[in-house]
Amino acid sequence: MPTILGQNQYGKAENRVVKITRDGDTHHIKDLNVSVALSGDMDDVHYSGSNANVLPTDTTKNTVFAFAKEHGIESAEQFGIHLARHFVSSQEPIRTARIRIEEYSWERIATSGGNSRFIGADEVKHSFVRKGQEIRTTQITYDGEEWQVISGLKELSVMNSTNSEFWGYVKDKYTTLKEAYDRVLATDVSARWRYNWTSDEARMPNWEKSYEQARKHMLEAFAETYSLSLQQTLYQMGSRIINSRSEIDEIRFSLPNNHHFLVDLEPFGLKNDNEVYFAADRPYGLIEATVLRDGIEPQIPVDMTNL
Amino acid sequence: MPTILGQNQYGKAENRVVKITRDGDTHHIKDLNVSVALSGDMDDVHYSGSNANVLPTDTTKNTVFAFAKEHGIESAEQFGIHLARHFVSSQEPIRTARIRIEEYSWERIATSGGNSRFIGADEVKHSFVRKGQEIRTTQITYDGEEWQVISGLKELSVMNSTNSEFWGYVKDKYTTLKEAYDRVLATDVSARWRYNWTSDEARMPNWEKSYEQARKHMLEAFAETYSLSLQQTLYQMGSRIINSRSEIDEIRFSLPNNHHFLVDLEPFGLKNDNEVYFAADRPYGLIEATVLRDGIEPQIPVDMTNL
Amino acid sequence: MPTILGQNQYGKAENRVVKITRDGDTHHIKDLNVSVALSGDMDDVHYSGSNANVLPTDTTKNTVFAFAKEHGIESAEQFGIHLARHFVSSQEPIRTARIRIEEYSWERIATSGGNSRFIGADEVKHSFVRKGQEIRTTQITYDGEEWQVISGLKELSVMNSTNSEFWGYVKDKYTTLKEAYDRVLATDVSARWRYNWTSDEARMPNWEKSYEQARKHMLEAFAETYSLSLQQTLYQMGSRIINSRSEIDEIRFSLPNNHHFLVDLEPFGLKNDNEVYFAADRPYGLIEATVLRDGIEPQIPVDMTNL
Amino acid sequence: MPTILGQNQYGKAENRVVKITRDGDTHHIKDLNVSVALSGDMDDVHYSGSNANVLPTDTTKNTVFAFAKEHGIESAEQFGIHLARHFVSSQEPIRTARIRIEEYSWERIATSGGNSRFIGADEVKHSFVRKGQEIRTTQITYDGEEWQVISGLKELSVMNSTNSEFWGYVKDKYTTLKEAYDRVLATDVSARWRYNWTSDEARMPNWEKSYEQARKHMLEAFAETYSLSLQQTLYQMGSRIINSRSEIDEIRFSLPNNHHFLVDLEPFGLKNDNEVYFAADRPYGLIEATVLRDGIEPQIPVDMTNL
Repeated sequence: MPTILGQNQYGKAENRVVKITRDGDTHHIKDLNVSVALSGDMDDVHYSGSNANVLPTDTTKNTVFAFAKEHGIESAEQFGIHLARHFVSSQEPIRTARIRIEEYSWERIATSGGNSRFIGADEVKHSFVRKGQEIRTTQITYDGEEWQVISGLKELSVMNSTNSEFWGYVKDKYTTLKEAYDRVLATDVSARWRYNWTSDEARMPNWEKSYEQARKHMLEAFAETYSLSLQQTLYQMGSRIINSRSEIDEIRFSLPNNHHFLVDLEPFGLKNDNEVYFAADRPYGLIEATVLRDGIEPQIPVDMTNL
Repeated sequence: MPTILGQNQYGKAENRVVKITRDGDTHHIKDLNVSVALSGDMDDVHYSGSNANVLPTDTTKNTVFAFAKEHGIESAEQFGIHLARHFVSSQEPIRTARIRIEEYSWERIATSGGNSRFIGADEVKHSFVRKGQEIRTTQITYDGEEWQVISGLKELSVMNSTNSEFWGYVKDKYTTLKEAYDRVLATDVSARWRYNWTSDEARMPNWEKSYEQARKHMLEAFAETYSLSLQQTLYQMGSRIINSRSEIDEIRFSLPNNHHFLVDLEPFGLKNDNEVYFAADRPYGLIEATVLRDGIEPQIPVDMTNL
Repeated sequence: MPTILGQNQYGKAENRVVKITRDGDTHHIKDLNVSVALSGDMDDVHYSGSNANVLPTDTTKNTVFAFAKEHGIESAEQFGIHLARHFVSSQEPIRTARIRIEEYSWERIATSGGNSRFIGADEVKHSFVRKGQEIRTTQITYDGEEWQVISGLKELSVMNSTNSEFWGYVKDKYTTLKEAYDRVLATDVSARWRYNWTSDEARMPNWEKSYEQARKHMLEAFAETYSLSLQQTLYQMGSRIINSRSEIDEIRFSLPNNHHFLVDLEPFGLKNDNEVYFAADRPYGLIEATVLRDGIEPQIPVDMTNL
Repeated sequence: MPTILGQNQYGKAENRVVKITRDGDTHHIKDLNVSVALSGDMDDVHYSGSNANVLPTDTTKNTVFAFAKEHGIESAEQFGIHLARHFVSSQEPIRTARIRIEEYSWERIATSGGNSRFIGADEVKHSFVRKGQEIRTTQITYDGEEWQVISGLKELSVMNSTNSEFWGYVKDKYTTLKEAYDRVLATDVSARWRYNWTSDEARMPNWEKSYEQARKHMLEAFAETYSLSLQQTLYQMGSRIINSRSEIDEIRFSLPNNHHFLVDLEPFGLKNDNEVYFAADRPYGLIEATVLRDGIEPQIPVDMTNL
């Protein structure tokens, strides 16, 4: 056979599971989008179409929903760990499971009460509005022995309206850009960080707290860095997380430079004193880098932040 | 000529203007997407291509940016009023101007200070994260005499995890749906409300406060209504606004019923006690209606909420 | 009651039905996205939540799929007519039905045969690739007596690389645009045309042929018009259809001016002789107009082309 | 320093360049979306914000447009090769350049002539309609010595309405799927193939012809394979290309299984004889695999097809 099969994986993608937990009248929501990818002894299904080793993707979908009942959803990470362990442990041909999860967060609707025809405000503990900022992500990979947990977020839009400069760069024959000593710096943060938890023997991180803290440090570093380049801001965001969170060893960012161009108002006899900007769509700068704890080998794929 | 020209309008759409206002170290952001549509004596440009009456769309774009400097952006509504008045007043062939605006809101990044290399937290008053919930909208129309202001919002996702039923409906030969006595009710609110301010003689509403209050009443009504149908919830949301805000006479909603189907876990020997749901994409129920102050003629187009 | 209910409608939106018709080994595909909106005697469901007059949206979904079997899908228009008639005729409280349909077209995959392990090329009459250009649309409205059929298309991207000028326009204090005597003209056509067939007594148009011809005339008019403004091109496209197709009385267009800006290459010592363009995203000009047969009252909503 | 910088890259993404070539009255279009990513000696800009080694992303944008004039756009691959060579050769700190390109294809508008007011059909050689099927892609990577060219396509929707089965799979406690002996098989092809051309010494492939042939073989294999699993179809598509095109050594696919579920019409007294399908959105099966020439080391990243 002149051609052979290389790496392959399969499963059901984007299972939209919502879990409601009732604590008396107070309800809690977990809203996930779960994608399963399995690999292992799958040559035959590619070469001959024999499905003898294939657990149907439909079954992986059913398992997601059943596990939401059987194990609950404590965190996206913990839920992914349950799923990955199950597929690798229960099916001999399956050697590796990769579970990707997006999480959408909801907050309670504040009610002032008193004006309802039906119920009092005190009883309204089941009403939610989607928070709408970043999408939280995690990817759990398990090969039967070692765990890899890469969590993160995407679509978190941030902006500094000052404390950003850009000058002193290389100029070649195609350079026309003017140096900037006070510019807007805006980006949509996409970040993925890898936990150093890899073994069932070790104590698991507190996934919920770790996420909140990583997010907080990242935002603070963005806000507090006086920036001479988006690369410098990126590095500050990454090193702040690595330095603050011992459970995280590596982080990769993909940061578009969402250009806000100062509009030339002089043709209209007006002076634009860093007030009026045009928010451009395309093209945009794109800055991508990994920040690592010293001595650690990188594992996050270079393109992962685009996924 | 066997064919004639009917209603027509033109202008520059989606001008993305960001206005930074500096109050000492404390900055404020207005982030708008402004679309201009002008109509009037425009037969010639359609029939013969003569542009003698045509103010270029490029000029309407320039005007948006210049006005952000000249008038500032107090509110999307006030900004649209400045623009519409200008086009109708300054160009004889232009009889009507319609300005549509989307607004994206930003909130400040909280910083704890102390760990910055460059600046203290107290100085961080120029850093923002996009709020990310609904998109605020307004549409200003002006014909030189009368104003029409239709504001609203879209993409505000809400969910009640209980206090929703659906039963007692018509059953025909194609009906298979089972009645529900405790279901999830979820939607993405798209709402447009019309102000009764129409004349420069009258006092303008406080656009910012009115928006916040309309949004609040709508969310509270959603949360506090024990719902027997999404139509009932819609009507409660609308009448709450009309009853609470004397400046608003009419509101139209377009509410998808974002189905959350209870997953059948019985094949796996599990009981699903209103815990595990599949959040479906398509198809979805779509409920649309206008709620009016009694005695008022409706003006909001039936399809406007889809725009 | 200080508030009242205005216009309202409900139904299941975006039912994705695919119909395969087998003519021996030769298969045919119809791929539709069908949205149902019903209105009538629906006050109670809004005021009190009583569903006594409400045919569930789930039933309207079932009806779409059942009718694909019972009536087949001869054309999107004919299918919508079957559905609208059914809802209005079979349910007393329903007075009006509006069926909106999007159609995606597929073409056969050409095969050269001979190299298949399993089957010969002659037998491959069941393999399709999505055509991928415009999305065809129709909207059928029926009130039990009169029909309104508004068909059209959207997302048909076209470009003339020359034979377009723009000059002689109004100049005010905000005008900076330079006149153009040879520019690129590009747009994404969104068009909706209304048929003058309104009664079961009259003979129905051939919907498939009429669509193909309207599309053809529109494209030819775009290509053949030497354009002094996009408005002029629009009018030519519309009048060509009205003049060529007696079954169509009115057409509305929404045409973004997809700007292709000539890039200034002089800083690099290069001359750009109408060769290198930057294709911009936002803002864009937006030209909208109705073209009518003389003496006809317009019925297509001004904003319909945005739907 | 407890944290260090890992892999990093930067540049201007999504430069939308359109090149018109005039061959007398006959025009030709190349419509590209070009993204530049550069890496090399970039530690300082991350650690201290010094831009001394940084060629601005704005300059990389200018270079894209200037090169469209200087070199023309013979093919996306050839254009990317010019760009990558330039950045690595002309800037000492830049060690590697990666150019990603999307290409959108256009076809001529057929005109029948005779009914134009301005010009005859014979002259209409400058009017185009976007083809609208797949987006063609390429990625050129150059480190000053070796080339890597990975081309492909995405968003090519295909469907077989028969000759697909799925049975004989593993059944566990979560399996409910019924076996299928005649099902619809539909997917949106995303494929990336690697050329074995790596050196300036070797003769370059004919990029345009190679693309057309790879696409053709892939479509034919999809159509001609009697499928027992989507994996089997995928492997046939890949091996057909490898076997037919000696310049291609490796191909990776990401194929969603776009489920078309047979609708149960029995509740309505109807038999669904493989006629009426519901086209589902989410979840979907996702099948991904690499097919290689025997003896070749894989280089295409496992996740690349998602980019």
